[in-house]
Amino acid sequence: MPRISTRGKNVPLSPFRKLIPIANAAKAKGRKVYHLNIGQPDIPTPPQAIKALQEADIEILAYSPAVGITSYRERLVEYYQRFDIQTDISNIIVTTGASEAIQLLCWACFDHEDEMIVPEPFYANYNGFAHNADVVIQPITCDIDSGFALPKIADFERMITPRTKAIFITNPNNPTGCFYSEEVLRQLGALVKEYDLYLVVDEVYREFCYDGQEFFSVLNIEGLEDNVIVVDSVSKRYSACGARIGAVVTRNQELLTTLDRYAKLRLSPPGLGQILAEAMIETDGDYIKEVKVEYDNRRMVVYERLKKMKGVKNYKPGGAFYCFAEFPIQDSDDFCKWLLTDFEHKNSTVMLSPGSGFYATAGLGQNQVRIAYVLNSDDLHAAMDCLEIALARYVKEVEQKENVLSI
Amino acid sequence: MPRISTRGKNVPLSPFRKLIPIANAAKAKGRKVYHLNIGQPDIPTPPQAIKALQEADIEILAYSPAVGITSYRERLVEYYQRFDIQTDISNIIVTTGASEAIQLLCWACFDHEDEMIVPEPFYANYNGFAHNADVVIQPITCDIDSGFALPKIADFERMITPRTKAIFITNPNNPTGCFYSEEVLRQLGALVKEYDLYLVVDEVYREFCYDGQEFFSVLNIEGLEDNVIVVDSVSKRYSACGARIGAVVTRNQELLTTLDRYAKLRLSPPGLGQILAEAMIETDGDYIKEVKVEYDNRRMVVYERLKKMKGVKNYKPGGAFYCFAEFPIQDSDDFCKWLLTDFEHKNSTVMLSPGSGFYATAGLGQNQVRIAYVLNSDDLHAAMDCLEIALARYVKEVEQKENVLSI
Repeated sequence: MPRISTRGKNVPLSPFRKLIPIANAAKAKGRKVYHLNIGQPDIPTPPQAIKALQEADIEILAYSPAVGITSYRERLVEYYQRFDIQTDISNIIVTTGASEAIQLLCWACFDHEDEMIVPEPFYANYNGFAHNADVVIQPITCDIDSGFALPKIADFERMITPRTKAIFITNPNNPTGCFYSEEVLRQLGALVKEYDLYLVVDEVYREFCYDGQEFFSVLNIEGLEDNVIVVDSVSKRYSACGARIGAVVTRNQELLTTLDRYAKLRLSPPGLGQILAEAMIETDGDYIKEVKVEYDNRRMVVYERLKKMKGVKNYKPGGAFYCFAEFPIQDSDDFCKWLLTDFEHKNSTVMLSPGSGFYATAGLGQNQVRIAYVLNSDDLHAAMDCLEIALARYVKEVEQKENVLSI
Repeated sequence: MPRISTRGKNVPLSPFRKLIPIANAAKAKGRKVYHLNIGQPDIPTPPQAIKALQEADIEILAYSPAVGITSYRERLVEYYQRFDIQTDISNIIVTTGASEAIQLLCWACFDHEDEMIVPEPFYANYNGFAHNADVVIQPITCDIDSGFALPKIADFERMITPRTKAIFITNPNNPTGCFYSEEVLRQLGALVKEYDLYLVVDEVYREFCYDGQEFFSVLNIEGLEDNVIVVDSVSKRYSACGARIGAVVTRNQELLTTLDRYAKLRLSPPGLGQILAEAMIETDGDYIKEVKVEYDNRRMVVYERLKKMKGVKNYKPGGAFYCFAEFPIQDSDDFCKWLLTDFEHKNSTVMLSPGSGFYATAGLGQNQVRIAYVLNSDDLHAAMDCLEIALARYVKEVEQKENVLSI
């Protein structure tokens, strides 16, 4: 039998996917599973935009231009203006989700073994895209005691080597929900300018900033036109994950030319998704505002509930729809699995993402989990009921086992 | 300014795309351009399937399963049965077009510098996917005098090195339109079995086989369950290039496991495209049969017209919707460009793909072009009128220049 590649064997499996077969087994037993493990919201996709797609006159679903349909890119220019971001369609390359955007950037910006500095915990699939392009992720660790704020600039500076090509952050952050202020971003901007690095910012959660904080895009830092690259996607802001429509936005002409070549290679991004995405911008009205209020409420449910749980360390996340909490456990992989195999409360249980998969540094995150507050408040409360009871029971079971072992 | 990667600089640009700006300039001058350069048919996408998509009840456009929507994979199983191919949904991984299928295979089957043997001329974007994964394409040259039939098995065998992992063919072929018979495929099958290689067959044109020839899939060769990999796409058979829905079909379990990991990494293939693709299989009725008759007629128009052109060498292609002809010229890049910049007939011209881009061996294909017969017969005749006049004029102009230079 011909053998698969070594790199194929080593593709990192995302931490929020590897428990799926176990969750399916739990469901097959008739158990209700609250999915707080994946960023798949329960919010409807804007119905007016779906209606527009469904009324569109489509005779031949042809390849779109490789960089995206012009009229959609024009709508994106208007959308970015809402954040005072001045772009031109030539700055925008439409991609198959943010996933493809990151993959293309890994190729276009990095040669083999080049490095990117990424604050950890980070969105675990970055590992896979870097792996596919032989890019080395240099993690810089954030601390739960500061709500996972970015490390000091001097700490970033110490990480820079001759092979460093970029600093890559997610703002607001997945998996921590941390919001990065204009001040911090400008400091990072000065650093990448000094060392001639790219500053890549995944801004797919830009709409979801709470507590009155205003989102600031690195695209608005003057003098960084050649350094700044923004990754975007419609998945989260419009609850349209299945559309697979993302984008790269940059003013770096050399990079745009290179991305254009990669874009042509795979012919075009999804056509129907682009029609929908264009309609979503055109018809969104109060949609995003209402969705933000909804997530803010859910955030407070999770925050308040976790705060009351014994031994749990948490913080109020400033953005996105995640929090990254510390539990009184030693092995969150085991705990998350146990939730699906050994636990039930009112015939329900909860699925979380174990923390370690979000770290590149071995040994970190083993007492942490990511919680995606993508369910409505009633479901969230029910999930938190499960979690509270589960944690107490799990901690007790572990203690009992340890007592038995120590006799 | 941070510099893009060396690999980014070296992405091969597809030969049918690099003339686009020049074609746009011609159009801006008010010239009609007949596009025979790209496999974008003018055939309508099945209207009943578009209707089904437009009537579908979509509330949340969520991520689909990473390997594709189950009901769509079930329809694909039924579709393959039309060709007596027995599969199970577990053998099918839905991808973002055949493009992504090939990219994933380049990662999953090959390590850096591993080799795949590909008969040339071949679909030029294979170069790019191989480049992205550092896979080395070892070309084996086909001859226009045999209608680009596959070389002898002994010639394939001579190409095999310790780094060879796969033989990769397209059946029916793009860019040559050559159809490969069951007999030839079984011979190749025996070879890959003997040398423990993958046999990857891009079958996206399987519906378009002419002159009563019956398509035979390598999936039906017994004993090759671990060797055979089929690449598929809905783009051509349903004229739905913009849907971006393809697939990998294989029975190799280890490979399926690996592809599943890559699939999870990019979360899911396009959701709307999958809904459409499922409806296309369900409602296609006589659609494919009618489209095949249409292409067959177009094939004969191109074949007959080329046959009558002075100095042109061609053949009757057995499948797909391409032919690869030899012209009485030295430099098809120059000729294809000249068609767009210096030529017009009734204020029209024609866009073709220069042949050299379809070869990996330097120097080959310079007197050849690919013609995609994707336009209706009237347009095709008009395009052939242009081509006939253009060729005569170009040949004369070149002769005159040479005479001037030789004085």
